[in-house]
Amino acid sequence: MSLRSGHLFDGLDKAQIMKLEGIAKMAQVEKGQVIFKEGEKANAVYVLEEGAVELTTFVEKDFELPISILRNRGDMFGSSALLAPHVYSLSARCAEKGMIIRFESDPLKKLMSEDHGLGCKIMANLAKYFFERLRETRQELKIHFKTLLMSTRS
Amino acid sequence: MSLRSGHLFDGLDKAQIMKLEGIAKMAQVEKGQVIFKEGEKANAVYVLEEGAVELTTFVEKDFELPISILRNRGDMFGSSALLAPHVYSLSARCAEKGMIIRFESDPLKKLMSEDHGLGCKIMANLAKYFFERLRETRQELKIHFKTLLMSTRS
Repeated sequence: MSLRSGHLFDGLDKAQIMKLEGIAKMAQVEKGQVIFKEGEKANAVYVLEEGAVELTTFVEKDFELPISILRNRGDMFGSSALLAPHVYSLSARCAEKGMIIRFESDPLKKLMSEDHGLGCKIMANLAKYFFERLRETRQELKIHFKTLLMSTRS
Repeated sequence: MSLRSGHLFDGLDKAQIMKLEGIAKMAQVEKGQVIFKEGEKANAVYVLEEGAVELTTFVEKDFELPISILRNRGDMFGSSALLAPHVYSLSARCAEKGMIIRFESDPLKKLMSEDHGLGCKIMANLAKYFFERLRETRQELKIHFKTLLMSTRS
């Protein structure tokens, strides 16, 4: 398992990684398979072990905007499961046959509250992760405004 | 001081709030005053005590995009100071004369590492805060795509 290489588990010690492995569930996914859908109750966090996963968001009923494609071992998705309102903010679909690791949020939250150090590191990693995604998303927004500015000038 | 009402300090106990008050510096700000600029080294986190603060980002040299206006006592800004690469990702300008509370990051990080519980709660609050901003920003991006879709159809 790739728990040592993931964003979510950065800085954890061997004992903590072993605890996480104890609640991890490996699953094979086929190309095109929906892992979860935006708006669904978020009850698990995932880590990519092998293959590729595409994250999208609904713009309209029949138009989905691609947000990113995860290809790296250890890439995390479904992290909404760890924060209120516990609803997936994106959809995840398998883009290439592979393996994913599933952490159901109840046992994961239990681990995090029992081992305070583990919980703390995971929250710090989440803060960092969301901060990076926020900066990327603002960057995209800027590009749209720039395009808009240029079109009004021409 | 409004340390009890801020996002950053949610869930802290009285003793922890007192420690934070010990390193807090109150400052009066005048309308138009620049508090920090995007791209500068981020060495302090701020909490709004009174007045209003506008956050913006540079799209072009002479065009700044407004991101939000903070008006609520306890609103946090400058949180980039707590995460690598420790560079402000937005500019903050006083929009209405008021008071702000400044936490220099060195003493704040020292407190967070000495009192693990305090550090942990602050990181969890940060994760929640960035997650909410990320969802808002993605929502804005969707609106742009919707507008774009509509314009290509008409």
